[in-house]
Amino acid sequence: MRQAGRYLPEYRALRATTPDFISFCLDPKKAAEATLQPMRRFPLDAAIVFADILLIPRALGQAVRFEAGEGPILGPLPDIASLEAHIPAVAQALSPVGETLERVRRELEPDRTLIGFAGAPWTVLTYMLGARGEPARGIAYSEPRRVERLLDVLVQATAEYLAMQVHAGAEVLVLFESWAEGLSEPLFDQLVIAPHRALLRRLRAAGVTTPVIGFPRGAGALVESYADRVQTQGVALDTQVTAELGRQVQSKGRVIQGALDPWLLRAGGDAMLARVDQLIEQWRGGPHIFNLGHGVLPDTPVFHVEQVVARVNG
Amino acid sequence: MRQAGRYLPEYRALRATTPDFISFCLDPKKAAEATLQPMRRFPLDAAIVFADILLIPRALGQAVRFEAGEGPILGPLPDIASLEAHIPAVAQALSPVGETLERVRRELEPDRTLIGFAGAPWTVLTYMLGARGEPARGIAYSEPRRVERLLDVLVQATAEYLAMQVHAGAEVLVLFESWAEGLSEPLFDQLVIAPHRALLRRLRAAGVTTPVIGFPRGAGALVESYADRVQTQGVALDTQVTAELGRQVQSKGRVIQGALDPWLLRAGGDAMLARVDQLIEQWRGGPHIFNLGHGVLPDTPVFHVEQVVARVNG
Repeated sequence: MRQAGRYLPEYRALRATTPDFISFCLDPKKAAEATLQPMRRFPLDAAIVFADILLIPRALGQAVRFEAGEGPILGPLPDIASLEAHIPAVAQALSPVGETLERVRRELEPDRTLIGFAGAPWTVLTYMLGARGEPARGIAYSEPRRVERLLDVLVQATAEYLAMQVHAGAEVLVLFESWAEGLSEPLFDQLVIAPHRALLRRLRAAGVTTPVIGFPRGAGALVESYADRVQTQGVALDTQVTAELGRQVQSKGRVIQGALDPWLLRAGGDAMLARVDQLIEQWRGGPHIFNLGHGVLPDTPVFHVEQVVARVNG
Repeated sequence: MRQAGRYLPEYRALRATTPDFISFCLDPKKAAEATLQPMRRFPLDAAIVFADILLIPRALGQAVRFEAGEGPILGPLPDIASLEAHIPAVAQALSPVGETLERVRRELEPDRTLIGFAGAPWTVLTYMLGARGEPARGIAYSEPRRVERLLDVLVQATAEYLAMQVHAGAEVLVLFESWAEGLSEPLFDQLVIAPHRALLRRLRAAGVTTPVIGFPRGAGALVESYADRVQTQGVALDTQVTAELGRQVQSKGRVIQGALDPWLLRAGGDAMLARVDQLIEQWRGGPHIFNLGHGVLPDTPVFHVEQVVARVNG
C-alpha cells in the first residue's frame, strides 16, 4: 500500500506544487520525494514507488484525469486494435516511473528494499470500462470474449511496465487486484487467476525473476485458491482475512503481508496496539511482512503510524 | 432476497400508486400484493414478505425517508435513552408488517412457505449512524462502548419485531447482515457474531422456535466462523462463497441458501443455465435452498427469472 499520502503534512505541501495528479505521478523528482518522505519519518523496511494504477490505461491511449473528491475519470475506451498498437511503447511512455525508481534507489539506504507495483488487469479494466465495482461483473458476463481480449492486452502491457520497473531498480513487485470482491468462483478464475498466471508467465519468460506479491483484495475464501494456483512469492491479505486463512497461505510456501485495518490505525489507542500484537502472534509460525490491509486513511494521525511501526520493530 | 421489484412491470405499476416508499411498505394491502406478485408469475416454494430493513430505526424514533436515486436518508440519531424507550412499542409500530403477513398467508397456497425478515443489528446500525460501509468501522473502533449499547438496543427491538412476524404467520425468518464485508476477525465477532447470538437467545427465550436463516453478506472466509458460532438453522451465501465453503457450512448441520450472481441472472444465456446446474451439483451432498447471492437487479429480463426457476424445478 502507498506509504505516502494526505496523512503526512510534507506530502500535502509537495502535492500542492503540482495540482494535476497524473502530472505529479509522472514527475520523477516529485514522485521520488513522495516515495522517500515516509522513509525519512519512519524506520520502514521497504519503500514503495509513488505512482498510480491508472498510468497504464493512459499509456495505452485512454484519457485519464482526476477530479478532487470524484476520483478518476477516464475517457472513452479506444478499440482493441488501438490499445494493442500502444503495447510496444508502454515501457517508454511510463519511463518517468522508471526514473522515479532510479532516483529513489540512489537515495534510499542500501538495506531498504524498493518495491514497484502495477494494478492487476481486472482492476485496471474495471476503470477502463467505466464500470468500477459491481457493474463490471455485468460486462464480464454479457461480453466474455471482449473482456478476455481486453485482459490479454492488459497482461501484455503490465508485463512490459513491470519489467521496465525491475530494470530501473524495483526489487519486489506488487500486483494490486483492488476489485476482487464479490466475484463468483468461475468469474474469479477467469478475471483474476488466469490473467495473474499469464502475467507471471510473461514476466518469467522475459527473464524477470523478481519476487511478486499478489494482492487479491476482497477475495474472501478465494484467497486460498489464489495461493494454490498463482505462483507469486507473496500474498497480501486484506483486513477481513482470518488468522486461519493466513496460516493456510503460509503453509503453501507463500510469504503473507498484512493486515491491520486502516480504520483501526486511524482510531488508535490500546486496541490498535493489541491488534498489532495479535496479528504478529497469529502469523508467527511462518513468513509475515507486517502491513496494513488497505491504504492509510487521509485523516490518520501520524503518531498512530509511529506507534505501530515502533511496536512492530519491537 | 426480495422477489418483488422493479424488474416486474406489475410491481412498477403498483409501486407508482404510493410514491413514498415507507408508506408503501406500511400499507398492508399493497405490501401483500407486492409479496404475492412473484408467486403468481413463478412456481416458487416460498414468499418473502415485502418490507424494508429500515422500518426498525423508524419504529425506534429515527426519521427515515427514501429519495429516488439516492437511497435512504436517515434523520439525526436519537440518544440511547430515547431509542430504548421505543423498544416496548416496536411490535405495535410495525403491526402493518404483521397485517401484511396475515394477508399473504390467507392468499398463499398452503404448501408455500411464508418468510419474514429483518436487517441484522450491525447493518441497520450502519444506516442509523449515517456511515454505511467502511466509515461505520471507524465508529466501531473509536466508540466501541456506544456501538455495543446501540447494538443491544437493536437486538431487543429486532427480537420484538421478529416475534411479532412469527405470530402473524412467518414460518421462516431471515436476518440480513448486508454490511459484513471488510470486517476484521475481532470486529466480526463483536459486530456480527455477538449480536446474532444475542438475538437468537432472545427469540428462543420468548418461545419462538421458527427456523432462522442468517445472511452474513460479504463475510468471506468468516462464514465458517459464523456457522460454527451462530446457531441459525440456515446460512445464506453471497455470490463469492466457494463450493468448498458451502459444503463446510452444510457439514456443520446447516441448510445453505444461494448463490446465483444477480449480474449473471441479468446477462442470461447458456452461461446462466450452466451456472445454475453447477450450483445445484456442487451442493447436492447436503441441504441447499436455491436462491440468488443478492437481490434481483432492476433491469433483469423476467424471462431469465422464468428460465432459472424452470431449471431449478427440473
